[in-house]
Amino acid sequence: MYKVKVYVTLRESVLDPQGTAVKGALHSLSYTEVKDVRIGKFMELVIEESGRDINELVREMCEKLLANPVIEDYRYEIEEAVAR
Amino acid sequence: MYKVKVYVTLRESVLDPQGTAVKGALHSLSYTEVKDVRIGKFMELVIEESGRDINELVREMCEKLLANPVIEDYRYEIEEAVAR
Repeated sequence: MYKVKVYVTLRESVLDPQGTAVKGALHSLSYTEVKDVRIGKFMELVIEESGRDINELVREMCEKLLANPVIEDYRYEIEEAVAR
Repeated sequence: MYKVKVYVTLRESVLDPQGTAVKGALHSLSYTEVKDVRIGKFMELVIEESGRDINELVREMCEKLLANPVIEDYRYEIEEAVAR
């Protein structure tokens, strides 16, 4: 079993209205030292051994479903082989 | 300037319907080796030096706005002092 952490972030060139809203909320709580906020997704997957290369498998899942490669970047970490 | 990465995840005991939906979608794409998916948020903040302790500041922002401590856990990394 693998534990995989996937981080999906908007590409630099894409506007992040959710991040802008959170920045505004932080400012209104008087945290004016916050200069930028960008929000992404963080996913934890537990994947069973299937004979396929785990790297290739995760990359495929990211490209097909977990991230939108047009506007998002992703990176992942394959954490460890968890005991069954 | 600090670059801070904040990871917000649902507590283990809290159901994650979004994760369940993504798992279902992965299964329907025939990635049946995926046994569990949990979805969280990932935030990147750029914070200016303000004389306050950066750790304390980030913890306060997480408790007040970025995470809901009743159902979510958070952790953060203070990455580096970015050149102005």
